[in-house]
Amino acid sequence: MKPEPQTDRNRLADSEPMRVHYRLYCAPDEDPGRKAAAIALEQTVELPADLLPEGIAGKWTGQVTLLEPGDDDDWQCCIAYPAAAAGSELSQLLNTLFGNISLQDGIRIDAIDWPDSMLSAFGGPAYGLEGLRQRCRVDRGQPLTSTALKPLGLSAAELAARAAAFAEGGIDLIKDDHGLSDQAPAPFHERLQRCQEAVTRANLRVGGNSLYLPNVTAPPQQLAERMQAAVNAGCTAVLLSPWLSGLDSVRWARDAFGLAIMAHPALTGALFRRRHGFKPAVLLGDLFRIAGADAVIYPNVGGRFGFSLDTCQQINAALRRPLGELRAAAPTAGGGVRLSDAGSWLDRYGPDTIFLIGGSLYAEGDLRAAAGRLRRALGR
Amino acid sequence: MKPEPQTDRNRLADSEPMRVHYRLYCAPDEDPGRKAAAIALEQTVELPADLLPEGIAGKWTGQVTLLEPGDDDDWQCCIAYPAAAAGSELSQLLNTLFGNISLQDGIRIDAIDWPDSMLSAFGGPAYGLEGLRQRCRVDRGQPLTSTALKPLGLSAAELAARAAAFAEGGIDLIKDDHGLSDQAPAPFHERLQRCQEAVTRANLRVGGNSLYLPNVTAPPQQLAERMQAAVNAGCTAVLLSPWLSGLDSVRWARDAFGLAIMAHPALTGALFRRRHGFKPAVLLGDLFRIAGADAVIYPNVGGRFGFSLDTCQQINAALRRPLGELRAAAPTAGGGVRLSDAGSWLDRYGPDTIFLIGGSLYAEGDLRAAAGRLRRALGR
Repeated sequence: MKPEPQTDRNRLADSEPMRVHYRLYCAPDEDPGRKAAAIALEQTVELPADLLPEGIAGKWTGQVTLLEPGDDDDWQCCIAYPAAAAGSELSQLLNTLFGNISLQDGIRIDAIDWPDSMLSAFGGPAYGLEGLRQRCRVDRGQPLTSTALKPLGLSAAELAARAAAFAEGGIDLIKDDHGLSDQAPAPFHERLQRCQEAVTRANLRVGGNSLYLPNVTAPPQQLAERMQAAVNAGCTAVLLSPWLSGLDSVRWARDAFGLAIMAHPALTGALFRRRHGFKPAVLLGDLFRIAGADAVIYPNVGGRFGFSLDTCQQINAALRRPLGELRAAAPTAGGGVRLSDAGSWLDRYGPDTIFLIGGSLYAEGDLRAAAGRLRRALGR
Repeated sequence: MKPEPQTDRNRLADSEPMRVHYRLYCAPDEDPGRKAAAIALEQTVELPADLLPEGIAGKWTGQVTLLEPGDDDDWQCCIAYPAAAAGSELSQLLNTLFGNISLQDGIRIDAIDWPDSMLSAFGGPAYGLEGLRQRCRVDRGQPLTSTALKPLGLSAAELAARAAAFAEGGIDLIKDDHGLSDQAPAPFHERLQRCQEAVTRANLRVGGNSLYLPNVTAPPQQLAERMQAAVNAGCTAVLLSPWLSGLDSVRWARDAFGLAIMAHPALTGALFRRRHGFKPAVLLGDLFRIAGADAVIYPNVGGRFGFSLDTCQQINAALRRPLGELRAAAPTAGGGVRLSDAGSWLDRYGPDTIFLIGGSLYAEGDLRAAAGRLRRALGR
C-alpha cells in the first residue's frame, strides 16, 4: 500500500478559479443578487462580507461573475471560486460545491469549468474505457458487456456458479450486486475467493477474458482490507459506491491499490432534484470521472429509474469528452436495460459504452446462453 | 490504533427486523401497492419476485407490513427489512435505506424502528452529552457553548489568536469552521498545533476547560493520519462531516482513536426534500447518533437555512430520547443563531443543548468579551 494521495496546495495557489454554473430558483421574498452573493460567502468563508478581515474578500471568497434571468422562473449564475479554497481533497471540493447550500433551496449546479490545476491534482481514471477494453481484449469500435451477481441471500458458492456461467457466456465485467457487502450468506472474503476462482477457471475453459469485480464498498478500515484482498486474489477491477464510502475512496483505490474502478450511483439520486442539487452529468460525469472512476453506472432511461434520454446522453458525453489530460471513462448504462433492447441502445449510444444487464439475463434461465445472446445483440 | 470495528453478522441473523416508515407520493400512473412492493425488492435483492431462487423471498427481501392513505396525497407505508441484510456496516445500512431509491421519486423516510441488535452493533456515542459536559466541567442543568474558528484565508496563527480569545471568554467547544481542511493559509497540522496550544494556554490563564475541535474531515488515508495527529496533540474531540467523509468515519474516530465527535451536516441537505429523502430528525438524529456522534450540529430555525421549529425540536428529541442502551447525544443548534437570542433559545430547547454561535460573536469585535456575554445570556 503506497502512502497517502498527494495534496498539492502550491500548484492550486496561482491557479485559474473553478467556475461553477448555477441555476437559481428564488422564493417570492428572495432577491437573486443577494442569493448569489450569499452562496459565494456561504461556500467559502461563512461570514458576512462586513466581518471579513482585510485581504480575505476576493482572494478566498467566491466571486459572482454572471447573473441573468433564465428561460423560465430561474436565474443563470456563475460563481468563480479560488481553486485553493476547494483544496486538493475531494471531501473539501464537495463541501465547496454543495456542503452548506445543500441545506437551502432552489440551487442547482448545471456545469463546472475545471481549472487544469484541479484536473491534474485529482487525476481522473488510471485506465479508463480503453484500459478496460485492453484488459477484456475487446477491440476498439466494440461495446463492453457487464452484469451483476445476485440476489442477496445466495451463498458464495451459488453466486460463483452464476459468475462462471456469465464468464463462459463471455460477459466482460461481472460485478457483485452493489447490495452484497459482507452479509452472512456470502461473506466478502469467501465470495471474493470463490467468484474470482470461478471466473478464472471459466476463462481458461472457454479462452475468455472476463473480469470479476467484487463490491469493496465498506467502512474506511474494511475498505483498505477488502481492496488489498481483491488485489491478492488477482482482481484488477472493483465495484465501489462513492456516495456510500466517500468520493475520495475512488482515488484511494486507484492510487494505493492500482485497481480499476466501476462506480455505482447509490445514494446520489437525492442530489438530482429538478430545482436543487446537481445535474446528473456533473456528478456522475465530471465528479466521478475526476475522482478516478474508469466506468460509471447510471440508470438508463426506460428502466426502473427516472432519468430522461437527454440526461443519459449528457452523462455519456461528460464521461467521454476531452477534459484536460484525463482519460475518458466508460458510461455504463444499467438499471433495467432489457436484453431485447440492447442492440438499439448500442445504435443510440455508440460502442464506447458498457451495457450492464442483470434481471433481463436472469429471466432467460440459462445464464451462459443468455450472455451469448447479449453478445450477439451487441455485434460481439 | 485498534483494529477494525467489529462486524457481528451472527448477532443480526436472528434479530427483529428493521422497520422503516415511509411516506410515499405517487405519480398519476403509479400504484401505491406496486410502489411499496418494488421498494422492498429494490433495496434488497434487486430482482423481480418471480426471478428469486427458492428460500430468498421473505428471508432476504423487505416485507410491506403497512400501506394506508395518509392525510394528504401521500401513503403511509412500513417495510420490515431483515437486520442481516442491512449488515453491521453503516455504508450498507445507508444503501438499504436509500441507495437505489434515491434515484426514484416520491419516497420519504419518516421514522425507523431500530432492532436492539443493530443499535448494539453500531453502538452510538462513546461520550455523549454527559461526557462532553464532564470534559468541559459544565454541571448538569447547564447548556454548553460552541463557536467556530473562521474565516478561511486567515493564517494558523491568526486562527489560534481567535481560539485563545474564545477560550479566555469561556466558550466550551471551539471548533474549526468545517470548510477549513488543509488549505495553504492554515494547513491542517500547523493549525492543529497552534490552536490546541492556544486553547491549552488560555485554559491555564483563566482556569478554563475549553476544548479545541480540529476539523479532521478528509479523504480516508488523511483521515486516519489527522485523527492520530489530533490525539497526539492532546485533543479529545474533533469535528467531522460524515456526509463528506462517509458515515462510518464517525465510528472509526470513536473506535480506533477514542475521540469525541461533533458531526456537521454538510451535504446532507439534499436529502431533506419535502417529498423525497429523509425527515431531518431521522438522518441527523437517529443515524448520526447511532454512528457515534456525541454532538450533532443542525441549522437552527431563523438562521440562514430553512429548517422549521418543529424540525429542530424533532432533531433535539431524536438525539436525546431513549434508544436501546445508547447514550444521548447533544443537539447543537447553529447556522445563524444570534447572541441576542441565545437566552430565548435556551428557554425553548432546554439545557441539554449546545449553542453554536459564530458570526454573531465576530460581529461584537472583542471576542473574549463576546464569549462572556454569551455565557451570561445562557446563565453560565
